[in-house]
Amino acid sequence: MVTSRWTAAPARAASPRRRGVVLERAILDAALEQLSEVGWKGLTMEGVAAGAQTGKAAVYRRWPSKEDLVADALAAGLPRVEAAPDLGSVREDLLALCRQVRQIMFSPPGVALRSVIHECDQIQAERFHEVIVGGVVEPTLQLLGEVITRGLERGEVRPDAVNSYVFDAVPAMMMYRSKVCASEWCDRELEEMIDQLMLPLLRPCAG
Amino acid sequence: MVTSRWTAAPARAASPRRRGVVLERAILDAALEQLSEVGWKGLTMEGVAAGAQTGKAAVYRRWPSKEDLVADALAAGLPRVEAAPDLGSVREDLLALCRQVRQIMFSPPGVALRSVIHECDQIQAERFHEVIVGGVVEPTLQLLGEVITRGLERGEVRPDAVNSYVFDAVPAMMMYRSKVCASEWCDRELEEMIDQLMLPLLRPCAG
Repeated sequence: MVTSRWTAAPARAASPRRRGVVLERAILDAALEQLSEVGWKGLTMEGVAAGAQTGKAAVYRRWPSKEDLVADALAAGLPRVEAAPDLGSVREDLLALCRQVRQIMFSPPGVALRSVIHECDQIQAERFHEVIVGGVVEPTLQLLGEVITRGLERGEVRPDAVNSYVFDAVPAMMMYRSKVCASEWCDRELEEMIDQLMLPLLRPCAG
Repeated sequence: MVTSRWTAAPARAASPRRRGVVLERAILDAALEQLSEVGWKGLTMEGVAAGAQTGKAAVYRRWPSKEDLVADALAAGLPRVEAAPDLGSVREDLLALCRQVRQIMFSPPGVALRSVIHECDQIQAERFHEVIVGGVVEPTLQLLGEVITRGLERGEVRPDAVNSYVFDAVPAMMMYRSKVCASEWCDRELEEMIDQLMLPLLRPCAG
């Protein structure tokens, strides 16, 4: 392997010698930054080392492969989804939840996560399945479930709307329109989605 | 640039000298095949030339860039979406339409198209926007619109369900679950989506 300009980075950077968790944190942060800037396929161990102002060996010592590094970076960097909103109506709760999801989607770790979801082939995707599903998909579906179940208790939601196709509609729409229509999901669009798609889908027919 | 084994391909292949549309067709087919196998970022002009058993120069003569080649390959190779099904009920029509969409999604040009949608960054995506939206998204939405409008005329669909959020729900769900859940959309799943998501969303409350 040829010597690249990246391998010279630690010498150039006059940063103090960092060890243990401090250096690890810097490497994980640099990996997320690389992911959100150049995507999964553009990310290199050299680039991450340069971003963290360390040497490639320091990266490989902790993470033997790009897959290992990215899995840890996503697990460490993704914002926790907050508690389910409880504002008194299913409309306001869904809207608040969608705003939370939007904030995560367009944060640097969210952009990094989407690049992994979109670019990875099936085999690589399996490596990240646990991080993505366990870290983002399931917590989001659980909050949606709480909001919808609370709506059911208030009589705003029909009982058979509590199913996985209904729960998936919100993340599916948000992913589809951000990808195919380059939508950034302004407040108006979120409200339209709730009013034209989710509320008609959820409401009891007698209402 | 170094000479690769690909540049030797035309000499090795004892295929007759092809010209004009025949050679163009072979190059476009090879581009789609490469896309569905190695994705947008893995595709190279050398690989396409090798796949078409021609030289790199023959490719560059017609398409100055990878973007130009891929745009033409997608435009030429994507299956036309057929006429909207008309089977007497909105449920059967939606199901037949979803089966058509599934067939296109998992065909080689469909896999190629999805690799472009998922892997391209925003700037590259603009180059393909017309091909993707004009060639696939809009025709599909138009057929969905026909099916839903026919349901409205039969009294199976509420009037205010004729809106873009409702129309997007089917392609959004199909993209989301194929990507995040690795779903291949077996017949049972298509039926569940129609019965648990689309029909409750479409039906008039009085019904």
